[in-house]
Amino acid sequence: MAITVVGSVAFDSIETPAGRRERCLGGAATYFSLAASFFTEVRVIAVVGEDFGPSEEAVFNARKIDTRGIERASGKSFFWEGSYLDNLNEAKTHTTELNVFGSFEPKIPAAYSDSQFLFLANIDPVLQRRVREAMPHARLVGGDTMNYWIKDHRPALLEVLKGLDALLINDTETKMLTGSRSLVLSAAKIFEMGPKALVVKHGEYGATVFFGGTGGSQSPEQLAHRAFHVPALPLEEVVDPTGAGDSFAGGFFGYLASQPELTPTAYRRAMFYGSVMGSFAVERFGTERLQQLSREEIDHRFKLFRELTHLD
Amino acid sequence: MAITVVGSVAFDSIETPAGRRERCLGGAATYFSLAASFFTEVRVIAVVGEDFGPSEEAVFNARKIDTRGIERASGKSFFWEGSYLDNLNEAKTHTTELNVFGSFEPKIPAAYSDSQFLFLANIDPVLQRRVREAMPHARLVGGDTMNYWIKDHRPALLEVLKGLDALLINDTETKMLTGSRSLVLSAAKIFEMGPKALVVKHGEYGATVFFGGTGGSQSPEQLAHRAFHVPALPLEEVVDPTGAGDSFAGGFFGYLASQPELTPTAYRRAMFYGSVMGSFAVERFGTERLQQLSREEIDHRFKLFRELTHLD
Repeated sequence: MAITVVGSVAFDSIETPAGRRERCLGGAATYFSLAASFFTEVRVIAVVGEDFGPSEEAVFNARKIDTRGIERASGKSFFWEGSYLDNLNEAKTHTTELNVFGSFEPKIPAAYSDSQFLFLANIDPVLQRRVREAMPHARLVGGDTMNYWIKDHRPALLEVLKGLDALLINDTETKMLTGSRSLVLSAAKIFEMGPKALVVKHGEYGATVFFGGTGGSQSPEQLAHRAFHVPALPLEEVVDPTGAGDSFAGGFFGYLASQPELTPTAYRRAMFYGSVMGSFAVERFGTERLQQLSREEIDHRFKLFRELTHLD
Repeated sequence: MAITVVGSVAFDSIETPAGRRERCLGGAATYFSLAASFFTEVRVIAVVGEDFGPSEEAVFNARKIDTRGIERASGKSFFWEGSYLDNLNEAKTHTTELNVFGSFEPKIPAAYSDSQFLFLANIDPVLQRRVREAMPHARLVGGDTMNYWIKDHRPALLEVLKGLDALLINDTETKMLTGSRSLVLSAAKIFEMGPKALVVKHGEYGATVFFGGTGGSQSPEQLAHRAFHVPALPLEEVVDPTGAGDSFAGGFFGYLASQPELTPTAYRRAMFYGSVMGSFAVERFGTERLQQLSREEIDHRFKLFRELTHLD
């Protein structure tokens, strides 16, 4: 089944202990769609500037990603500059230039309207909601957000959450959204806001999905039945953590979209594929590794995750 | 096979968001031996003061723990007071009174000398080494340490590491010991110091074991074959995180000591039992939950960990 993703397509200048790269092709929608493209058909909605040329277009084309929804505007593309020198788990932002993204009005090509899967990457919740409403046939809607929207745009974000099936955010965002220290209690609060599944991304510690169910107090037994954990792959070196979470989301959602039925087993395997795609993304700068990946490598790594977690 | 553990038996006054308790029975050797006692015979080496009375003794007796190595000295037992009000992952220490522990000279009962498993809980590395040397028949030796010994008693600690098969420490201690940000590179450095296995405890994110093997640069494939991850159980509320790591160590080491052979599968299951025992420890203050536990509850929870991590 096809996925439509709306989000940023951007250029990133990144510094990590492994080195520095200027103006890599990046943005949440780029990482997401590259990762998801190994599992299913992907369609992107975004806006780029005149600096987005044939070589950037070729990255999407090589993975057969539908770019008819990438609008070309006059001006420059979204640009982000950041570093991870002290802490690989947290980017320090040096520059954010919204550029053409500042006046982004998502336009959805008619050819996208039959997408049964929709992912709202981290952008202004007002835009997320608009895209959600324009895609009423979406059978599974996932979304991401960030501290800025949680803190300063809460009412708009709460409207988006009402229309989400799955929310994928990190630990800090989870605690900020709910005011609770406990991920379990946070999940319960988030289920009341709309989503039926919460994927909490733990960075180097992997990710946990919680599934909504009966409300009220939960015993450890009930909780364990309704959660699933996947670690991150231990790596000698994380070259560049940028886009790891978006790549996780692409693997997770891409795998789900490729399945005939959204069973609990499909969700568990989707968590594995999410962590697999995140593990590749961080091996090189920007989207370099995702561009050079094969499905065989992905399936091989999936087996490594099984070894890393399964008793037998 | 019997385990001998040397470490602190203490009283703790603890404050967490769930409340406050005065002078709970605690100490690393207490948590460790209670947790391990569900799997195998446990023998303790420690020192206590006159405030350690029949009711404390009864806690050990109820679990058939051999306390002949607990020396009674005149004065008061080790006392610790701390809180976890801002962050459940990190204790804030208010008071540490070494009391009788300040002049502790471990004495090993003759009846302990055939112990094939030895655990050196977090105490002065000079004492850890002395106990290690007095137990030459130990077939598997595990140990723990803390930031204070890593920072200010490094030469003595390095001597202890030479005699360890397995080191169990947390993320911060691992990075402090090796100066490396990467757990994988840290593990490689620690294998050069002596241990053949490194268990890194991640608090609410579980734990990862790394096994030593061939040196040099490792591919993700090689690494995944030589690592195993277990999450922590998601809980609605962590009542008191004190002793979670020692309970993990007790479950891990206790299970290993109960096995006829130390196979890779035994190590994997030991990681699960470690996290199982940690998950019980934090459900109530101090050692309350470990005192009231049954083997049936442990085995039931082991199955929950399987559900939480296994695809099928």
